[in-house]
Amino acid sequence: MREAEVKAVLIDPQNGAPVIILRDRHSSKVLPIWIGQAEAISIATVLQKQPFPRPLSHDLMKSLLDAAGAKLEKVVISDLKENTFYATIYLRTADGQVKEIDARPSDSVALALRTSSPIYISEEVFAQSAIDLPAEELDQSPLDEKQRFEEFVDKELNLSEFKRYID
Amino acid sequence: MREAEVKAVLIDPQNGAPVIILRDRHSSKVLPIWIGQAEAISIATVLQKQPFPRPLSHDLMKSLLDAAGAKLEKVVISDLKENTFYATIYLRTADGQVKEIDARPSDSVALALRTSSPIYISEEVFAQSAIDLPAEELDQSPLDEKQRFEEFVDKELNLSEFKRYID
Repeated sequence: MREAEVKAVLIDPQNGAPVIILRDRHSSKVLPIWIGQAEAISIATVLQKQPFPRPLSHDLMKSLLDAAGAKLEKVVISDLKENTFYATIYLRTADGQVKEIDARPSDSVALALRTSSPIYISEEVFAQSAIDLPAEELDQSPLDEKQRFEEFVDKELNLSEFKRYID
Repeated sequence: MREAEVKAVLIDPQNGAPVIILRDRHSSKVLPIWIGQAEAISIATVLQKQPFPRPLSHDLMKSLLDAAGAKLEKVVISDLKENTFYATIYLRTADGQVKEIDARPSDSVALALRTSSPIYISEEVFAQSAIDLPAEELDQSPLDEKQRFEEFVDKELNLSEFKRYID
């Protein structure tokens, strides 16, 4: 498995659909996953540290887990079938059991960010769908990296409208 | 407190915002609450018994609660401040405690429908915001009730684009 971080939330100008970019922590590869509007907003508010005045669905999800004494161990982008990514949430219950729960990647990532839980990508999904970032990108200063990432987004992902960037 | 049921999910043509209509089970009054798009879709899929192929956020919320051994006791539309409705979720944890969790009405209703939990409106909110349905409405046949409800929606709520009706 590959440990990943959320590098960005972008908007696909072709159809207005948001895309999250998951970056492998130990290589220059990224995994783009198209997600829903509400989940994208939910993820972006955490990345930008701008909480809504009222709890969003994933804030409530975290409150419910806290109240139930359950903890998110990790989330895994576990499968890809017919162009749909699948995720699995590993939940440790109050009595110490670990349960596996089927989820969408968007919900899983939105919840993982709120609970500071690690995000993994299965080797199989990674091999099928990860895309190379230019190798030099790793050696750049933050500003250069940002520019290079924007170029990568334009060229490789064909997303010309770059909405949000998170280092 | 008033026990309520979800009578309809409508679309406000002025701004495209969805509205849920909560109806008092023991009177002819209803409470309209404007909610988000994603939450409206989530509520409508349950009312229409048309689940999505992948779990929506509230389906996941239910799965997490099931895994944690926690049960939704009830949800209450508890407060109205500066035009914003507040809800409280009463959760019974695996060890028998009942915890109160702050939530939006939309998330609360979406989750209550999935767990067959009762939905209540506080007397204070009800007194402030409930609207009368025409009294005769209660005596009509199902088709008449539907027509009367549509008239009510057009006239009282000023929502001319009637999207979904649930008896």
